[in-house]
Amino acid sequence: MDSTSALRPPHQVDVPSTALFTDHYELTMIQAALRAGTAHRRSVFEAFTRRLPEGRRYGVVAGTGRVLEAIENFRFEPAMLEFLRERRVVDDRTVDWLADYRFSGDVHGYPEGEVYFPGSPVLRVEGGFAECVLLETVILSVLNHDSAVAAAASRMSSAAGGRPLIEMGARRTHELAAVAASRAAYVGGFDSTSDLAAGYRWGIPTVGTSAHAFTLLHDNETDAFRAQVDSLGAGTTLLVDTYDVTEAVRIAVETAGPELGAVRIDSGDLLLVAHRVRRQLDELGAHRTRIVVTSDLDEYAIASLAAAPVDAYGVGTQLVTGSGHPTCSMVYKLVARATSDAPDAPLHPVAKRSTGGKTSIGGAKWAARRPDASGVPEAEVVGTGEVPADLADHLMQVELVRGGEVVGREPLTAARERHLRSRERLPLSAAQLSRGEAVLTTEYLTDRG
Amino acid sequence: MDSTSALRPPHQVDVPSTALFTDHYELTMIQAALRAGTAHRRSVFEAFTRRLPEGRRYGVVAGTGRVLEAIENFRFEPAMLEFLRERRVVDDRTVDWLADYRFSGDVHGYPEGEVYFPGSPVLRVEGGFAECVLLETVILSVLNHDSAVAAAASRMSSAAGGRPLIEMGARRTHELAAVAASRAAYVGGFDSTSDLAAGYRWGIPTVGTSAHAFTLLHDNETDAFRAQVDSLGAGTTLLVDTYDVTEAVRIAVETAGPELGAVRIDSGDLLLVAHRVRRQLDELGAHRTRIVVTSDLDEYAIASLAAAPVDAYGVGTQLVTGSGHPTCSMVYKLVARATSDAPDAPLHPVAKRSTGGKTSIGGAKWAARRPDASGVPEAEVVGTGEVPADLADHLMQVELVRGGEVVGREPLTAARERHLRSRERLPLSAAQLSRGEAVLTTEYLTDRG
Repeated sequence: MDSTSALRPPHQVDVPSTALFTDHYELTMIQAALRAGTAHRRSVFEAFTRRLPEGRRYGVVAGTGRVLEAIENFRFEPAMLEFLRERRVVDDRTVDWLADYRFSGDVHGYPEGEVYFPGSPVLRVEGGFAECVLLETVILSVLNHDSAVAAAASRMSSAAGGRPLIEMGARRTHELAAVAASRAAYVGGFDSTSDLAAGYRWGIPTVGTSAHAFTLLHDNETDAFRAQVDSLGAGTTLLVDTYDVTEAVRIAVETAGPELGAVRIDSGDLLLVAHRVRRQLDELGAHRTRIVVTSDLDEYAIASLAAAPVDAYGVGTQLVTGSGHPTCSMVYKLVARATSDAPDAPLHPVAKRSTGGKTSIGGAKWAARRPDASGVPEAEVVGTGEVPADLADHLMQVELVRGGEVVGREPLTAARERHLRSRERLPLSAAQLSRGEAVLTTEYLTDRG
Repeated sequence: MDSTSALRPPHQVDVPSTALFTDHYELTMIQAALRAGTAHRRSVFEAFTRRLPEGRRYGVVAGTGRVLEAIENFRFEPAMLEFLRERRVVDDRTVDWLADYRFSGDVHGYPEGEVYFPGSPVLRVEGGFAECVLLETVILSVLNHDSAVAAAASRMSSAAGGRPLIEMGARRTHELAAVAASRAAYVGGFDSTSDLAAGYRWGIPTVGTSAHAFTLLHDNETDAFRAQVDSLGAGTTLLVDTYDVTEAVRIAVETAGPELGAVRIDSGDLLLVAHRVRRQLDELGAHRTRIVVTSDLDEYAIASLAAAPVDAYGVGTQLVTGSGHPTCSMVYKLVARATSDAPDAPLHPVAKRSTGGKTSIGGAKWAARRPDASGVPEAEVVGTGEVPADLADHLMQVELVRGGEVVGREPLTAARERHLRSRERLPLSAAQLSRGEAVLTTEYLTDRG
């Protein structure tokens, strides 16, 4: 595939207000709490998941950078306030409070790209109740979507064993979810994307050459390949499965010469066809012409092609839909709140206690990844209160927002590198694609035992 | 749930340029075709799906209104052109051509909300090759996402048998996919949404009252319920499963009186709990207090509650992720193109012919839903060439864009009403949730037999 230049700082793009990516009930809760005088009780919310998707061995935190943007851009525009007033979503006092809204609290969390496990407190948001509860929906939207795609991407990149991976799922998901999916796939180990908006917005390298329509537009395959090579050069990638693959490969090398960059196969039994095409290319002297495959791939199909002469994978549907798990089950829960409205009132741990499941552990939590004697992580320790001395060097959370100011911004490449490092350190069983348990057990170390 | 006023015209919202929601290869194909002199050959593209998701009996066309907006807003902004130039995505000649891009062709398609079957030509785009191929990615993104959600919504609304359905999945999907999902759910038969942005953008009624965090913020359930009723009135919905459901229902009626609007149950065995709560409410004299359930629902869970005393369902994850099928498999294929660049050159049907699957039928297609003697549809007839006289009154496609001008805009309520009518007319087996075949067989009537 022809590629644009390497990753570079993205174009500036105006991010619209994120203030209405919010559930109606956040606002009615604020209205009721304002009236009751409880709206500004100091509070701690945490985002975490109770379990990994069935059979998955680790999760991948993705979207943190987008969460920080969402918090910065969480401001109600005049037309939005007018909408809330007109539709009587909340009373005037609440609308007035929303008009001045700026998050002024603190956020800590797992840095983007880090792996996570059930119970890992991947984000902790502290401030007044109202200012924190308001962010619930948008924070969860970003983390649930982006982490789901990144987890699938990570498994695929693990299966690809170093061969380049192209994200090409834009057409299979919402047009803006697609941009976030490209970003998450990049964090999870993908190398490039077909999505121009992802290149524009996030600086991810974009690639692509031609579709079957291009061949069908021309009177025959020779004309089509000639047109493409004339314009894009012999280094381009020719799509060889519109009519007959063997004939197309012959015409491709005849047209572009042995310097042909690559051929792409988008249908059929990829294992079989790749071997046949490789033999044919070699016989034609096109030893350096690469083979790109792009048909209905997922991590299992990629793994099954490990021994095939394939040079790059393009992945669409299964990537952007999280390979069977299109969303994580992250929740955002109030875990502690002040006992009164006084600014220095002590924090009191809280948790849902009904018997129908969905219980959680109260109290603001720290997390540490405890290594064994050889340095390999052996447990995810989640606790409240004091951090034991032996875990102090292994804490997972970093500061992301301090007093409303974002302090945890970083380039996307940093998240991608962190993910590859973090995954690399895990026990070897993390790379198994078969269904299994989380590779690290979560141990709870709470004040109350 | 407290609800905002009924559906009304949405607020005007600037839709950003959709021009970069495009795969890189669309642009390189245009570059090569411009150079080869084939870029403006008159062409026909069609969007269709080769099969329904496994076990599904019908599909639902959704997103058409958003497709029309996407076409109107498909204009390259100066910064985007600069990006394409700087990154060398395509050559200067192509960038100059893109700078002036406005779609000037015609679009026909199934109107939004209509049901569809394998092979149904849900959208037909005609114009020059370059101007049509450029729209591929964004058209598919919208149709694949929105139709997937609408299909799930339709099954759920069918299962709910007239009880109100609330879309509350924003936190489970990308924040802007969520807005489109609310819209698609509404088309599929949902009544309201928790997502404020969906209310703002599309005028869908928004609802919501409180979460567990609100109860936990207060010192006890009595304080929390009192705060909510004081502010939102006795007609509000109280969430009763934070601690003990029976105790909460007692406190709820004690606090709000028998005029309490509703209680919401968000965990546990909903069938069991709903019966118990109904009995308790009746014993307390709260005969008109409704019961809303909202925990991990899908169409099967909704159906299983048909005989339970439940008054409304709130659905999240399974709705916005298409209940197991988060994307449709719509493709956008060149099916005919002129034999030369002359404006009056005849159209020539084209189709991929390789043996590896993914073949399709060439030629611009019409579609008709043929009724049996009693007026019930019995087949989806898809053909090329002349329409048989007996099918002329049953054609499915309508004009959406004429010479680049959108002519098929309609209010969202029209799509919703159309869907309910269209589903109603189908053979009874369409309402079965069990896995099965498409309720209508697609029959092909092509020039070549």
